[in-house]
Amino acid sequence: MTSNLQPFIYPKRVPAAPPVGAAQASTRSDVIPLSYGTPSSDAFPYAELQAASAAAIFQEGRDALQYAGALGPGRVQQWIAERAALRSIHAEQGQVLVTYGSQQAIDFASRALLEPGDHVWVEAPTYFGAVSTFKTAEAVITSFPLDADGIQVDRVEIALREAVQQGNPLPKLLYCMPNFHNPGGVSLSVERRERLARLAYEYNFFILEDDAYAELVYEGQHLPAIYSFGPERVIYLSSFSKIIAPGIRLGWAIGSATVIRHMNSFFQGSKASVFSQEIVAQLFDHLSFDEHLQHLIERYRSSRDVMVDTLREQFGDEVQFQIPSGGFFIWLTFPEEVRTSEFVKDATDQGVSFLPGSQFFVTPEGGHHARLSFSYCNAEDIQRGVLRFAEAYRHYKTRVQQHN
Amino acid sequence: MTSNLQPFIYPKRVPAAPPVGAAQASTRSDVIPLSYGTPSSDAFPYAELQAASAAAIFQEGRDALQYAGALGPGRVQQWIAERAALRSIHAEQGQVLVTYGSQQAIDFASRALLEPGDHVWVEAPTYFGAVSTFKTAEAVITSFPLDADGIQVDRVEIALREAVQQGNPLPKLLYCMPNFHNPGGVSLSVERRERLARLAYEYNFFILEDDAYAELVYEGQHLPAIYSFGPERVIYLSSFSKIIAPGIRLGWAIGSATVIRHMNSFFQGSKASVFSQEIVAQLFDHLSFDEHLQHLIERYRSSRDVMVDTLREQFGDEVQFQIPSGGFFIWLTFPEEVRTSEFVKDATDQGVSFLPGSQFFVTPEGGHHARLSFSYCNAEDIQRGVLRFAEAYRHYKTRVQQHN
Repeated sequence: MTSNLQPFIYPKRVPAAPPVGAAQASTRSDVIPLSYGTPSSDAFPYAELQAASAAAIFQEGRDALQYAGALGPGRVQQWIAERAALRSIHAEQGQVLVTYGSQQAIDFASRALLEPGDHVWVEAPTYFGAVSTFKTAEAVITSFPLDADGIQVDRVEIALREAVQQGNPLPKLLYCMPNFHNPGGVSLSVERRERLARLAYEYNFFILEDDAYAELVYEGQHLPAIYSFGPERVIYLSSFSKIIAPGIRLGWAIGSATVIRHMNSFFQGSKASVFSQEIVAQLFDHLSFDEHLQHLIERYRSSRDVMVDTLREQFGDEVQFQIPSGGFFIWLTFPEEVRTSEFVKDATDQGVSFLPGSQFFVTPEGGHHARLSFSYCNAEDIQRGVLRFAEAYRHYKTRVQQHN
Repeated sequence: MTSNLQPFIYPKRVPAAPPVGAAQASTRSDVIPLSYGTPSSDAFPYAELQAASAAAIFQEGRDALQYAGALGPGRVQQWIAERAALRSIHAEQGQVLVTYGSQQAIDFASRALLEPGDHVWVEAPTYFGAVSTFKTAEAVITSFPLDADGIQVDRVEIALREAVQQGNPLPKLLYCMPNFHNPGGVSLSVERRERLARLAYEYNFFILEDDAYAELVYEGQHLPAIYSFGPERVIYLSSFSKIIAPGIRLGWAIGSATVIRHMNSFFQGSKASVFSQEIVAQLFDHLSFDEHLQHLIERYRSSRDVMVDTLREQFGDEVQFQIPSGGFFIWLTFPEEVRTSEFVKDATDQGVSFLPGSQFFVTPEGGHHARLSFSYCNAEDIQRGVLRFAEAYRHYKTRVQQHN
């Protein structure tokens, strides 16, 4: 029947190409992945997950294996609210939405808040997964630079004022990562959090506060969330991916009852797997979360230290970076003329992967940056990986010098 | 900071009210749920699921608990392709997309195919979960009646021809349930399947073929899917909800490589939980699927028979229905003047729930129909439930007669 088949015109919201990042994995089996923003497989609580699964199936399965039901979802929401309180977030029933990871929460927030052509403001650099979702929502994206204290709120305020003066559209949404920024590694100062929330009220936009690394604090205290300064105009996001396992595929959003109800509508009466939620609820009975978290923090802190030491040893002053006090990433700044995308292949040839900085910007900039992740590999691989990365950089430099 | 808060204008795609159906559950603990389209909790393979979960965690967990990885997803896709072949569907790699249940597949298909204002044609009656998704896509919905052989393709063809003649918009999508229709209980004849596929080519629209009950065939053979007659313009959907458990929350879409790639883009580089997929893959090692399916079929067939017998005994000729040869539902037709929505509360008072027919139509019709489900309850509850339902109907009739 192919004979009379005409071309079908797809909506323009369908992305033309797959999002960045997915294609970074190498086929070489001995490539050390410093590109992955994934937790270590050594850090998963296997035995406890197995006990939790068995309990979810045998004790609660008659309900937990149905579409809805069992007590797991309620217990998970309660746990989320308790942890959020450590960041000065007050969340009541109806203010927490469990989703299939933060990515789905970003999608639901975009669909709940944005019409095609609406403006979304992001940080530069920012997380490409979120950008991809905003593009699917057919948003117009503008970015604002980070410094050591996070997004430069001064510049945001100036741009808002100018937009009003010039009659240009205001943003409907500002996406930011306040803690241990991916990829920037920096955290937003408390003073800026408060100012940002005030601006959201004043100029009537929502802030999407992505706090995926909230629990992985290696030094210092939990800071109050932006949400705590403006609960009606902030949607706070986090996830079990980094503290339990990405495969459990559960994240959450906290917001006003109104915005959460709107986001929830995209589940069309369904909800995120109650079986997975029951496993998480049971897990907290089989695991001391505080001990587990302490174990994760010690592991990742020590991995970070190994990466920092090896980078200093290999690069000296040739590379600048801030030591992140949490999260998974070190954001490298090479001299201005360096183009990190030009030694991605050298790196793979040397047996290491990383992400070039340009992938984290919505404008053609950031070419002299690179993101290294210390989360997935063990200490020995991190050391070897950074050595290989430095070797790749030297190859690149030699090649560039020969051409000049 | 609430003082300077202005109202936020949400996009119109956000549904004003929660979708129908979710609110049907009663708070009375002894209500027999004949409203639920859910499988029996007695039918879940608990021990095998537990063994499969343990294997997913201990044998494959290092990969299966990550974002992507392990062999489970590939094995699940292969299983899906093999079962689809029984319905004359040929699906190669890149033509199967695993989603969080059929509902997400309907959502992804809608977003991949529809612009706001596009036309979607559905059956009358149809499944309200799909309608809710089409409304979220801001589609214009038109419905076409069923008869004993499924959607009346004659009428569809006339409407297509008229649309062309009158310069009216053609549909982008036609949604239909070819087997054991929810709620209609009927199946689409093979001749109509072929004609429908031919129309999709001729008038350049997609058919969304929802085959959630595909495996639950109580009499007769598997029929060739509509997909088999028009693979470039049909998206075939099915799910593990009815054959394993809804809580596993995995369904799938089969389509051309192009449309599947477009649908997949809404995962934004992620995918449906690889951990859940690994559990399913391991389950097929721990379970004889053929035996399990035979067990399900015998259970549900016998439940159907109990419901049919009790309905006949209680209602005689006062209610018409076709005996479904598969699926979960019996679709009742009362005399024209009956309004089933007017005895929903009588039924709850008697201790039984059902869904009134009007919920399954996009136009104000169907008020003299009702859907009863025989899937969730055991035989004894089905019998008692139908008795209570008949009692509620008698209360209603007495009330109506007193008013006249």
